[in-house]
Amino acid sequence: PWTLLEDVLYHLDLGTKTHNLPAMFGDIKFVCVGGSPNRMRAFAQFMQRELGLAGAGEDVADICAGSDRYAMYRAGPVLSISHGMGIPSISIMLHELIKLLHHAKCRDVTIIRIGTSGGLGIEAGSVVITDTAVDSSFQPRFEQVVLGDVVVRSTELDKDLAEELLACSRDIPDFPTLIGHTMCTYDFYEGQGRLDGALCSFSSEKKLEYLRRAYDAGVRNIEMESTAFAALCGLCGLKAAVVCVALLDRLEGDQIRASHEVLWEYQQRPQRLIAAFIRKRLGLCPTD
Amino acid sequence: PWTLLEDVLYHLDLGTKTHNLPAMFGDIKFVCVGGSPNRMRAFAQFMQRELGLAGAGEDVADICAGSDRYAMYRAGPVLSISHGMGIPSISIMLHELIKLLHHAKCRDVTIIRIGTSGGLGIEAGSVVITDTAVDSSFQPRFEQVVLGDVVVRSTELDKDLAEELLACSRDIPDFPTLIGHTMCTYDFYEGQGRLDGALCSFSSEKKLEYLRRAYDAGVRNIEMESTAFAALCGLCGLKAAVVCVALLDRLEGDQIRASHEVLWEYQQRPQRLIAAFIRKRLGLCPTD
Repeated sequence: PWTLLEDVLYHLDLGTKTHNLPAMFGDIKFVCVGGSPNRMRAFAQFMQRELGLAGAGEDVADICAGSDRYAMYRAGPVLSISHGMGIPSISIMLHELIKLLHHAKCRDVTIIRIGTSGGLGIEAGSVVITDTAVDSSFQPRFEQVVLGDVVVRSTELDKDLAEELLACSRDIPDFPTLIGHTMCTYDFYEGQGRLDGALCSFSSEKKLEYLRRAYDAGVRNIEMESTAFAALCGLCGLKAAVVCVALLDRLEGDQIRASHEVLWEYQQRPQRLIAAFIRKRLGLCPTD
Repeated sequence: PWTLLEDVLYHLDLGTKTHNLPAMFGDIKFVCVGGSPNRMRAFAQFMQRELGLAGAGEDVADICAGSDRYAMYRAGPVLSISHGMGIPSISIMLHELIKLLHHAKCRDVTIIRIGTSGGLGIEAGSVVITDTAVDSSFQPRFEQVVLGDVVVRSTELDKDLAEELLACSRDIPDFPTLIGHTMCTYDFYEGQGRLDGALCSFSSEKKLEYLRRAYDAGVRNIEMESTAFAALCGLCGLKAAVVCVALLDRLEGDQIRASHEVLWEYQQRPQRLIAAFIRKRLGLCPTD
């Protein structure tokens, strides 16, 4: 349907008539996405250094500067894009990104969400590689409304990719990395059983009972994008992974109270893991 | 539950221990929210001029500069905040905003979402004041998942406020303003019946049939935040309105192809209406 004369990727402020997408993006092999624009800019700068690219240390240009909905940066074959918070926001970006990769004739692209999350029964600062993204009933499914009807989609992620990432993590001993289920919710407060939202209709006991049930179902962290990300990437044939750091252990509390410095270091952990993975894939690892 | 010793409004980078919230926000009477940070900064600058405030024409400071999740500006008694795209993103902001207003001891606050939308059977550039926010089945309800269970909430908005806004619009003759239902979806592409997403499983005929059913149910525009906004503000006792401009008529197409200049002028229309309303409320209208 989008073999249009012109395709406007509205929220990215890119288009087939206004931009030479094959020239701009044809050599992209890795796409990394995350919620925060500042974090994704920092990741692009980090990858420039890690890949030994010219211009490392300098500022990187926002390819979507004409739109303030998303920010996009590149470092060699790596594209780094922000997606905002929640399923609707990441869905818009993914639809337009997947069309962009198609228009640019990209091949064999690996896409990884590097995000933040609440941990479940794991130490703050742990990194979780998602084997299965589950909904708030702990089921591996994503319900997409199409023309008013619900369509259920699989949220399977690439198992080999998850194992490859876990293998990379063994070379980074200074933080714990594990594989587990990731629960994806539509809400940060009531939807994740937080007691500290503007509204709260349940007790601390009911909250802990729910979170313990999630833990028993294999959930190790909670965030707000993974099911839609897994479903859309899977249907469009992109190999996809989700790697999130836990900012706290939700069995211990609701509020994120760590200092900016500690949180910033936590957020670099998935970036370091993905940098090691990309360097390995590109044959840049001297120790292997 | 949030009569905590300290309340960290994490995504706003504000808190009860780090900021004197009553001093910073105690005199706020109007809160205007919209998706785009640039648009909400422009709105704060526009309100500074409209209210004849000192510093008008100068830049405004982002009160949430320590976080890149949302942007917040103020102009006299008016707070202008971005909420990103989609229900999860606006919900996080609203939870933290409502707690902020509580901590700051604000009274009689009116909250208005000024956004963009796709029109339904109305001319591009028309401004829709929402009487009822409806879901993708055209029902006035918002389904909130709480601890894995679905809770259905009312999406009623303040009828008197909608009428007051419509009355203000009569003084602005250079664009059409109307009252109608607003449909809120979780997705911009498949969820709104667009044919031009990365995935599309339906025909142009099925799309038009769905959009015509929506029109017949009273829907005049489609966006991605109104049901959650109406539900959360209603439950927390805030008088709320939704005022969105239509960037296109969805019965005519899917892509937003107007120039940046035309789209920017469209986006100013809800701002001009809300400025007239706030001036009137503050007794600043010379012609009444």
